Amino acid sequence: MHRIPVGTNILEVNEQIAEENRQLFRARGVFVVNVMSAPGAGKTSVLEETIKRIRSRYRLGVIEGDLMTTLDKDRIDALGVPAYQITTGTVCHLDANMVHNALHGFGIDGLDLLFIENVGNLVCPAEFDLGEDLKVMVFSTVEGAEKPKKYPVMFHEAEAVLLNKIDLIPYSGVSLDELQNNVLDVSPEAEIFPMSCRTGEGIDDWVNWLMRRMEKATLRVSYSRMAGALSE
Amino acid sequence: MHRIPVGTNILEVNEQIAEENRQLFRARGVFVVNVMSAPGAGKTSVLEETIKRIRSRYRLGVIEGDLMTTLDKDRIDALGVPAYQITTGTVCHLDANMVHNALHGFGIDGLDLLFIENVGNLVCPAEFDLGEDLKVMVFSTVEGAEKPKKYPVMFHEAEAVLLNKIDLIPYSGVSLDELQNNVLDVSPEAEIFPMSCRTGEGIDDWVNWLMRRMEKATLRVSYSRMAGALSE
Repeated sequence: MHRIPVGTNILEVNEQIAEENRQLFRARGVFVVNVMSAPGAGKTSVLEETIKRIRSRYRLGVIEGDLMTTLDKDRIDALGVPAYQITTGTVCHLDANMVHNALHGFGIDGLDLLFIENVGNLVCPAEFDLGEDLKVMVFSTVEGAEKPKKYPVMFHEAEAVLLNKIDLIPYSGVSLDELQNNVLDVSPEAEIFPMSCRTGEGIDDWVNWLMRRMEKATLRVSYSRMAGALSE
Repeated sequence: MHRIPVGTNILEVNEQIAEENRQLFRARGVFVVNVMSAPGAGKTSVLEETIKRIRSRYRLGVIEGDLMTTLDKDRIDALGVPAYQITTGTVCHLDANMVHNALHGFGIDGLDLLFIENVGNLVCPAEFDLGEDLKVMVFSTVEGAEKPKKYPVMFHEAEAVLLNKIDLIPYSGVSLDELQNNVLDVSPEAEIFPMSCRTGEGIDDWVNWLMRRMEKATLRVSYSRMAGALSE
């Protein structure tokens, strides 16, 4: 439990606990991915497709954040991957403390990769660091090409932006080019992956990038540990 | 400006200002509709289609809530309807005080019907009364049939639930029946209107219901005024 002095800024407190989480994740050698999106963009579907492609290679775990129900956890359970449900009640995002508390009930020892699926919300989750290594955003192309301009924060925070449901593009009147340009306007460094969880198009590109990104981070941690050991 | 004593519950303060707004709206004879949804469900498109069908009959106004940009206001302006933009910065919902302040800059005298388009968010807007007469929710069917179970509050709060984008149903794998049943599980009294702003299907049913709902409320207000005058 964390005692929080009255009057402390809520985001500062969150940052402090996020840093503790990060140390814990590093010490355990777990790479942590925070998956964010508006409701219904396809976070759980992206996780399902990703898990199917990498579960033979890595030891995986998932923390699910929802207001209510364990529907998403049940979908992950069905893939044989350990999952833990956080229900937030009326709180519209996960925070570092919720994740910290989840780790008391959910063992991450031995995991290579932990996904944290945030509450579906295009605004608040982007402001709360959970101690993750990588922030990923899923966006449903059907939601409209102008959304990066209207909700810039999450697009800006995410290292990778997954543009899901491209199979619906021909029926939706949304321009994928315009959408990609708007993402890059808000976040010029973003890695963009157009994809469809229904047809499977584009998923492999994302998964290959994720594996490279993870292995680079793991190498960096191993190297800094080795350097630390040598300097002792 | 409202002075808020330290320690007061934020929702209680909101309720108090909402009540002031409500009195003001009643006194001016304006019927007020709070339109809520997740990002990209089609709130502005619903307003455009609704406005086109009723603008010759009623004097209309729109208050737009967005984190940033005046894109939605520009779309309403293009229809020749007066619109006012509230930009909330990082705040993920409108509250009664924002609407109260907007009324200093946006005249509602002479309006019959004021739409307030909330910030795109499936969680927080539902908790903040703005002083409106009617809460309406737009939901994109493509977001998935299970969403009423996962985000019950807004479905429960809304008197009418507009199930938009039904033209995409055949391509999305979502069952409209299942979705409707899930809405009714959470909110048995909800008026449900399946519709498509792209094809126009179902819009008239919603607009006819809205006009009846509005006229019933206006009659009630006139009657209570008349009764008040008689008893004086």
